[in-house]
Amino acid sequence: MKVVLDAMGGDNAPHVPVMGAVQAAKEFGIKVILVGDESQIKKELSKYSFPIEKIEIVHADDVVSMDELPSKALKKKNSSLHIGTKLLKDKLADAFVSAGNTGAVMAISLFTLGRLKGVERPAISTILPSLSGKTFLLDVGANVDCKPVHLLQFAIMGEAYAKYVLKEENPKVGLLNIGEEEVKGNDLTKEAYKLLKAAREKGLNFIGNAEGRDIYSGKFDVIVCDGFVGNVALKLSESLAKILAKILKEEIESHFISKLGAITLKPAIKSFKKRIDYAEWGGAPLLGVKAPVIIAHGSSNAKAIKNAVKVASQFAESYLNEHIEKNIERYGKLNGY
Amino acid sequence: MKVVLDAMGGDNAPHVPVMGAVQAAKEFGIKVILVGDESQIKKELSKYSFPIEKIEIVHADDVVSMDELPSKALKKKNSSLHIGTKLLKDKLADAFVSAGNTGAVMAISLFTLGRLKGVERPAISTILPSLSGKTFLLDVGANVDCKPVHLLQFAIMGEAYAKYVLKEENPKVGLLNIGEEEVKGNDLTKEAYKLLKAAREKGLNFIGNAEGRDIYSGKFDVIVCDGFVGNVALKLSESLAKILAKILKEEIESHFISKLGAITLKPAIKSFKKRIDYAEWGGAPLLGVKAPVIIAHGSSNAKAIKNAVKVASQFAESYLNEHIEKNIERYGKLNGY
Repeated sequence: MKVVLDAMGGDNAPHVPVMGAVQAAKEFGIKVILVGDESQIKKELSKYSFPIEKIEIVHADDVVSMDELPSKALKKKNSSLHIGTKLLKDKLADAFVSAGNTGAVMAISLFTLGRLKGVERPAISTILPSLSGKTFLLDVGANVDCKPVHLLQFAIMGEAYAKYVLKEENPKVGLLNIGEEEVKGNDLTKEAYKLLKAAREKGLNFIGNAEGRDIYSGKFDVIVCDGFVGNVALKLSESLAKILAKILKEEIESHFISKLGAITLKPAIKSFKKRIDYAEWGGAPLLGVKAPVIIAHGSSNAKAIKNAVKVASQFAESYLNEHIEKNIERYGKLNGY
Repeated sequence: MKVVLDAMGGDNAPHVPVMGAVQAAKEFGIKVILVGDESQIKKELSKYSFPIEKIEIVHADDVVSMDELPSKALKKKNSSLHIGTKLLKDKLADAFVSAGNTGAVMAISLFTLGRLKGVERPAISTILPSLSGKTFLLDVGANVDCKPVHLLQFAIMGEAYAKYVLKEENPKVGLLNIGEEEVKGNDLTKEAYKLLKAAREKGLNFIGNAEGRDIYSGKFDVIVCDGFVGNVALKLSESLAKILAKILKEEIESHFISKLGAITLKPAIKSFKKRIDYAEWGGAPLLGVKAPVIIAHGSSNAKAIKNAVKVASQFAESYLNEHIEKNIERYGKLNGY
């Protein structure tokens, strides 16, 4: 198992990716190939001790910046993104991780690796903590204008990921909507509901509409939506959690008696943060391309990178893509779509 | 100033609406007309003392249930919703409040009162707390498939509400989108951006795209989106706040030392809840119909009803609808839409 890690991607590259690679190699024994500027990577690596056989460097001349347009990034053929994904294509490695520019990672992965057979649109997914565990939400930004069949295919890919990578026994799949009843929704979700219902007959564990509140309720293991709605939901959640914590802090500080007790709260707040911390979950899998790609948050710390590398290796070990292709063939192209 | 209150709407009607009416009459001196089953209302009223000249009863034989389809509700001509909105149409009262079935309140209000001149689609809006104050979000469920011009009109209605009812001096208006740049978004938001930019030339204070995180950041006073996205965002927010509080409680209880300090936290938690409590803000204005209508949450308590009555009277006093018609005429029908 070899995971390629983009050493140049993320807000604090190459410092953070290199530290994450060292941690992944030491803690999980995963072999990591760092792609990027060789001299910078070597300089960073020199700060740590680690099993040297676990870390390899592949040089890349160029870097895609965090705000570069994907169309421009595609032309930088010597970027760490191009060279990294090329290693997968050539079967020299098993999975790819980047905390770089999301649009560019997606475009270059798609260009270099191609789509899985039958998949019309790859999707970016994310794992969110829920009351009872976690919810897998997709798409969160790859596809802003979707057709009903895309949502059906997201459901198939999401179900497979929950089953084979997250090891949920019989993941419950829901369609994000504005009411529980079948007739509710906009044109897109009403049509998608019909396709998902038909796919249920063939084996998809679709249990119905999920509402906004269900993203965190734990009633569903997988929730599908178009990338516009998913992106709004994801960014809203990240900010709301931070803002609520900030308001709570302000209130604690403004009440004398609460301030006195605040110190006793520290262990609880620490566990609380851990439970809602995306860094625990690694990165967001890009589903529907021909090799495992994990997109980590641009502001990832070393722990998030380490966990993303671990998730990437689990993805590669799971034969997920074979399962997805089989299910797309089986019930992913219904009703003449 | 007379506010009509649907005594039969909400999860605990008529108990809660009647209690809310009494509180509004006593605290704010607002005259309230309770519409619904006269004998039930009288029975509830007998529990309280209040200035009797402030509360009137208008009998209605029928009730629209919380889960009734709007199409069916429209036919119940003797429902409290029909009779209540009819009082506005006949100028016998100034504003209407209901905590009943949202779809039915909207359909019947629209049917009885009609749309404002030039407004293509009425919108349901909501006030959300932000770090620096509040954000006015619309549409949150009335229109699930929108055209760009609808979003432009939501912006005009939202700006006017923030200015004339919420008394924001120069409210900043944003378009909910998945990136800050003008080119970002789906087909709907890219087109809507152009219209909003053109309206800015004519006076609309449109400051650009808002992301999911901005709903609570306080950077915008008004954010517009289609009703599908708005509804998901609203329900997600309500549940996430509750879930985070629950997780925090679980963590406090599982750490001995934190448990000891928890009692000191009570004043802080109380203020925290007050700051994020929708009941403080009253209800959600239905904008674009010819008279002030406020839709309160189905699970409203008496305080929420009381505040909704107050908001309704402020709405009626503000000449908001005249301002909206003027601005729709001025910059709400751009580019040949």
